[in-house]
Amino acid sequence: MGIEIERKFLVAGDGWSQAAEGPPVPIRQGYLANPGAAGATIRIRRAGAEAFLTIKGPGGLVRAEFEYPIPPEEAEAMLALCTTPPLAKARWSVPHAGHLWTVDVFEAPANLAGLVLAEVELDSAETDPALPSWLGREVTDDGRYANAALIRDGVPD
Amino acid sequence: MGIEIERKFLVAGDGWSQAAEGPPVPIRQGYLANPGAAGATIRIRRAGAEAFLTIKGPGGLVRAEFEYPIPPEEAEAMLALCTTPPLAKARWSVPHAGHLWTVDVFEAPANLAGLVLAEVELDSAETDPALPSWLGREVTDDGRYANAALIRDGVPD
Repeated sequence: MGIEIERKFLVAGDGWSQAAEGPPVPIRQGYLANPGAAGATIRIRRAGAEAFLTIKGPGGLVRAEFEYPIPPEEAEAMLALCTTPPLAKARWSVPHAGHLWTVDVFEAPANLAGLVLAEVELDSAETDPALPSWLGREVTDDGRYANAALIRDGVPD
Repeated sequence: MGIEIERKFLVAGDGWSQAAEGPPVPIRQGYLANPGAAGATIRIRRAGAEAFLTIKGPGGLVRAEFEYPIPPEEAEAMLALCTTPPLAKARWSVPHAGHLWTVDVFEAPANLAGLVLAEVELDSAETDPALPSWLGREVTDDGRYANAALIRDGVPD
């Protein structure tokens, strides 16, 4: 608790879809206060029937993360306080060689629709997961691909 | 839940101290992301042995508020993520004519030390509490006296 260790990749092609376990979880999320800037990120997320309030420290492979489940109706009220348009994506689970990958297919806002990103959460920074063939470039350390940055600045050129 | 109705006042003199019920609760708090700006405020608070993560909407008499108790050690880790210096104050409870007032005596940062503010939380915006004689000017609608603004800009002239 308190630390998230995660690698993030672009996705090349739809090879992941054959291994995906469905149905995907519909996610809607927004950011409170200054998304994408230095310092902490405060995210409100609806994920299926659940809702979470999440504080994340500055990005990279190892990142402080504090996540609290909250009542969905409170999440909706806080989404209305967000200064960003709501982000919507479908989250697919894709098992590969002993790790569970998540593939996010972005749906909204319109300028993010169609973007696909893959992530894998790791137990330690030393874990070296087998990389599926459908991965593209790694963007773990590219802050432009943080969801909070994407919603502020759009997809990088 | 979800709404805070609160009036805030400057304090004139120390008449409140005779009615105060002690000991005061020591409070330390910090703000994540852009304190004092438009939009939501995200506060991490230690209050005695407890800790809370609180999201507040834009200020005034009636304000959206969502408060979640969190483990104190997680609060300490999030205080380290705050971009502001920690704010410390002693919170006294002062009953007066059927309402429980809180009097905050600021201790840190140094430019806020000695500031005293009084607040009363109300059940409805129509409640008209009897005002103690030791109150000064009302600052409910003066955003400069929000704690997040004080820590950013200091005490107004």
